[in-house]
Amino acid sequence: MKVIVDVAIIPLGVGLSLSKYVAECEKIFKFAGLKTTLHANGTNIEGDWDDVFNALKKCHEHLHQIGVPRISTNIRIGTRTDREQTMEDKIKSVEEKL
Amino acid sequence: MKVIVDVAIIPLGVGLSLSKYVAECEKIFKFAGLKTTLHANGTNIEGDWDDVFNALKKCHEHLHQIGVPRISTNIRIGTRTDREQTMEDKIKSVEEKL
Amino acid sequence: MKVIVDVAIIPLGVGLSLSKYVAECEKIFKFAGLKTTLHANGTNIEGDWDDVFNALKKCHEHLHQIGVPRISTNIRIGTRTDREQTMEDKIKSVEEKL
Amino acid sequence: MKVIVDVAIIPLGVGLSLSKYVAECEKIFKFAGLKTTLHANGTNIEGDWDDVFNALKKCHEHLHQIGVPRISTNIRIGTRTDREQTMEDKIKSVEEKL
Repeated sequence: MKVIVDVAIIPLGVGLSLSKYVAECEKIFKFAGLKTTLHANGTNIEGDWDDVFNALKKCHEHLHQIGVPRISTNIRIGTRTDREQTMEDKIKSVEEKL
Repeated sequence: MKVIVDVAIIPLGVGLSLSKYVAECEKIFKFAGLKTTLHANGTNIEGDWDDVFNALKKCHEHLHQIGVPRISTNIRIGTRTDREQTMEDKIKSVEEKL
Repeated sequence: MKVIVDVAIIPLGVGLSLSKYVAECEKIFKFAGLKTTLHANGTNIEGDWDDVFNALKKCHEHLHQIGVPRISTNIRIGTRTDREQTMEDKIKSVEEKL
Repeated sequence: MKVIVDVAIIPLGVGLSLSKYVAECEKIFKFAGLKTTLHANGTNIEGDWDDVFNALKKCHEHLHQIGVPRISTNIRIGTRTDREQTMEDKIKSVEEKL
């Protein structure tokens, strides 16, 4: 099952500068071969369900290993069976109507 | 890795009454042996990471199988290594301060 | 316009114990006369759009005033024009199908 | 109070093609003079708290007026008092660490 997700990872107990930890997870997503796009409030990821959620688990595990005591992550998950759709398709179909 | 999540499942393309589909996923979460609490805007779930996300995948797969063409799910995921905490603990620690 | 929301407030830069700050916002929501229900991963709130969002703004302002340097909040917002629905209605309609 | 938000609007009861409605809200955000960036799973918006939430209310009102019976919106809200930060700053600080 293919999935498009939007992931926002919030490490807690490590101060106010979170970009270092976000970057660590970006590397994990890339290493997993997932298509990703970073934005100001999260990361869009496209891939197979298992690949995406395995990578997300690795991200939580890795952040805990490097000293993050608590993590709060927010995800939006989209799956559909009516037609194939990429992340670019989603953006294009809105932009065409602007 | 233990996880506490909050899941809000929104089936698309099946009209305005979504409770039938939410109930289907509740049954899947229960059948998986997960601790769950339904609230007005989602479901709190506590369990092992793999058990929780396997159940969530089954929920998406099942809804598609019974005719939901598109699903948009929002999840909040919490993991922590500093101490053990249950869903009841989280509520109690706020209520004590009210 | 009536709204049902689910609010999860995450104060950053104040350590790992967040319940004190969540409780402060609960008090603000109650003081605003809003119907609220606390759960393990947030708070359900029902009320007029302006009342709800004014209270949420006050919550952010108040937390900053008492020393929280950064706040990350996640909200689910539901509005509908097809029929009246309370938070209890939403829970009941799922429970009836379990 | 300045705010950076991420808004994902899901119109319900209008079929599976949602881009038309997302585009309507994009126009409302732009017309309000807000800085916005569309991505595959939502829109990043930067501005004054009141401007952002007034525009979001207008978006819900407008979608209902053009026939959307139910709307489910997910927002991530970020406010901070420790330093000024734009949406570009947030992306840059992650990219520098990749």
